[in-house]
Amino acid sequence: MIAANNPALKSWIKVAADSDFPIQNIPFGIIKTGRTQPRVATIIGDTIIDLAALAELGYFDDLQIDNSVFYLPYLNEFMALGKATTRAVRDRISHIFQHDNAELRDNEEHKSQVLVNPIYAQNLMPVEVRDYTDFYSSREHATNVGTMFRDPNNALLPNWLHLPVGYHGRASSIVVSGTPVRRPKGQKKPGDDGKPGFGPSRLLDFELEMGFVVGQSTQLGQSVSTAEAEDYIFGLVLFNDWSARDIQAWEYVPLGPFLGKSFASSISPWVVTLDALDHFRISGPEQNDPPILPYLEYEGKKRFDINLEALIQPEGGKPHTVCKSNFKYMYWNMTQQLAHHTINGCNLNVGDMCASGTISGETPDSYGSMLELSWRGSKPLAMPDGSERKFINDGDTVIMRGFGEKDGLRIGFGEVTGKVLPAT
Amino acid sequence: MIAANNPALKSWIKVAADSDFPIQNIPFGIIKTGRTQPRVATIIGDTIIDLAALAELGYFDDLQIDNSVFYLPYLNEFMALGKATTRAVRDRISHIFQHDNAELRDNEEHKSQVLVNPIYAQNLMPVEVRDYTDFYSSREHATNVGTMFRDPNNALLPNWLHLPVGYHGRASSIVVSGTPVRRPKGQKKPGDDGKPGFGPSRLLDFELEMGFVVGQSTQLGQSVSTAEAEDYIFGLVLFNDWSARDIQAWEYVPLGPFLGKSFASSISPWVVTLDALDHFRISGPEQNDPPILPYLEYEGKKRFDINLEALIQPEGGKPHTVCKSNFKYMYWNMTQQLAHHTINGCNLNVGDMCASGTISGETPDSYGSMLELSWRGSKPLAMPDGSERKFINDGDTVIMRGFGEKDGLRIGFGEVTGKVLPAT
Repeated sequence: MIAANNPALKSWIKVAADSDFPIQNIPFGIIKTGRTQPRVATIIGDTIIDLAALAELGYFDDLQIDNSVFYLPYLNEFMALGKATTRAVRDRISHIFQHDNAELRDNEEHKSQVLVNPIYAQNLMPVEVRDYTDFYSSREHATNVGTMFRDPNNALLPNWLHLPVGYHGRASSIVVSGTPVRRPKGQKKPGDDGKPGFGPSRLLDFELEMGFVVGQSTQLGQSVSTAEAEDYIFGLVLFNDWSARDIQAWEYVPLGPFLGKSFASSISPWVVTLDALDHFRISGPEQNDPPILPYLEYEGKKRFDINLEALIQPEGGKPHTVCKSNFKYMYWNMTQQLAHHTINGCNLNVGDMCASGTISGETPDSYGSMLELSWRGSKPLAMPDGSERKFINDGDTVIMRGFGEKDGLRIGFGEVTGKVLPAT
Repeated sequence: MIAANNPALKSWIKVAADSDFPIQNIPFGIIKTGRTQPRVATIIGDTIIDLAALAELGYFDDLQIDNSVFYLPYLNEFMALGKATTRAVRDRISHIFQHDNAELRDNEEHKSQVLVNPIYAQNLMPVEVRDYTDFYSSREHATNVGTMFRDPNNALLPNWLHLPVGYHGRASSIVVSGTPVRRPKGQKKPGDDGKPGFGPSRLLDFELEMGFVVGQSTQLGQSVSTAEAEDYIFGLVLFNDWSARDIQAWEYVPLGPFLGKSFASSISPWVVTLDALDHFRISGPEQNDPPILPYLEYEGKKRFDINLEALIQPEGGKPHTVCKSNFKYMYWNMTQQLAHHTINGCNLNVGDMCASGTISGETPDSYGSMLELSWRGSKPLAMPDGSERKFINDGDTVIMRGFGEKDGLRIGFGEVTGKVLPAT
């Protein structure tokens, strides 16, 4: 077991029982305060920890890291140090904050430099996203979409059970939680007059996904096996793949989604390391009907039991849960996605982002998009304020949360939120 | 007229009559020599000009540029100075190298630092590509593909004449001319046994395209009009969008091309500014059947008459022209592509790359891919050595060239080449 993961550890920082950020999590992110430039940080309980300050005070000296990596506006250079080093940093942080370690705990001057109250800090984009790939790996989601738009008896397309279908997405418009999302304008399918419509999307949707961040590069021509893949996965975030269904429906043949997605995707600010999720590993689904090709075979527990939730908060109202799903509803796991992604020699960069695709469970209340929850708008969802939702309204804030919980240990992602602003 | 474009200008550097790089071109690229780090450069005739050295010697002092932008491994920071500045640099270079300007011409010591013999220099990737978008804007190409794979009587899909169809591509695997291209492996459509095939692509193809480089960023939520679009286009390159047809055919439903493209795309090393192509502007096609939406309307000459050529050079053989096309075969021009790309608020970054899609002309010898030239392999092309080509063989080098020529002035792109190596 990785030392920092020991469920018995307690921190001298107060951590609420339902916190996503116990001392066993130690995610990485980028913060900015009024008096500082962007820098690398972590969080324990509700307390943000300035890792640049920790480094400057010498707490990482034995790790022989160039402290400048903590003073950068993205995690990319830090991740590029390699897992041996970033794991050592996480272990060291775990050690510094253990309840019986006095070295920082009893040094008020150092604490005043290192500990940051979240109300004085802003979370920035944790990663400079290089290429972004969105997969389509939940069988339940693909089945729902195929049932709605094609043939309920042949909901999955012929390739779906043979390979993790994926496509390139837009990296520039991935934004950090809290960034407002402007309702996009665009073309829509022609009506009876044969003329395409134009204007603000009327079918704005969320997609409940998780994303993983690549922490190690490959050379062009190199393939990553399923056995090697986890070495390349630095950590995970919650991912809201905002979608304009009407724009997408008109544009997407034959080359896939474009403007129906590229107006925004939102991620949670703390990158939770793959290491921290080790407790929540579970086995994958059977993949022998049809059997999969050898390069997609894998060993071990590669799925993760992470509870996911999506909520809609109307303007001035309270958040209302519209979906409870779980990251375990993935037919194709991350190691298979990465092995497939690179089987043709496609090279990876530190900072690449790969999202799961909408994660829908088996029951209607676990579907990961309004498209499925309202079944193309045919079953509106009742909101506590008496209103209905088929899709997302202006002024609505969409909130996603996620956490694993096992044997009394909870490791979570916090949340990703985004408020929808009216089209200009 | 931009001063540097004056067709009457002559340089004191010797320029062959059929050179792509007269003093009116002045493209920008990145070079590396044995004794130097990567730096910004241009080329006149066959002589490379080290712009970092020119800057260091004070030749740009009146432009008040931080000389460090010339010492970077990509043009991004240089482009980000803005068109007013980069245009001033181009004008200044034009002035320095005019035949009657003695300031550098007669300074042997300076010349020894500034002028670089191409045999001692290597062209590197000119741009750090941020997001890459591939359009599909040649009507002839879309018609050919639709005729082959769908319905000759309804070759164009319903959206095609209403919007510039495009999709996100893989930025990481865009490589500079001369980089070998490894034949990709991957899954292919099942045969009679229902099992997908796996192995090296057997249908490796080129796509003859042009790409433009974005030189100015926008904010998320901002749209760029067709009238503004050219302010955002720094320059153009030749673009070979390598494609594995068999991999693509199996994977691409419903979310578009992925591994069939992401193994490599090749670009020419010199970014030819939009300014330098001013002589070759021509009017666009009628777009009133059906009429286009107002945000896609534009004024002025937005297409470019640039001769394009693709050649195959077998191992140990001579280059053989297989296609002659022209950049003018675009139904949707670059300003329309950019206006469409941003109509939903998608933000642009300096370094974004947008490719045209395969540029096919009206006659069979002008089709921009082997897929079309050999009509899905049904009409193999005869090569001078007696062999045939349906697609690209291991050991073949694909070469693309492009130039405009008018009123005795020729402005070109040099070439983009890539040799196909066998799969591993």
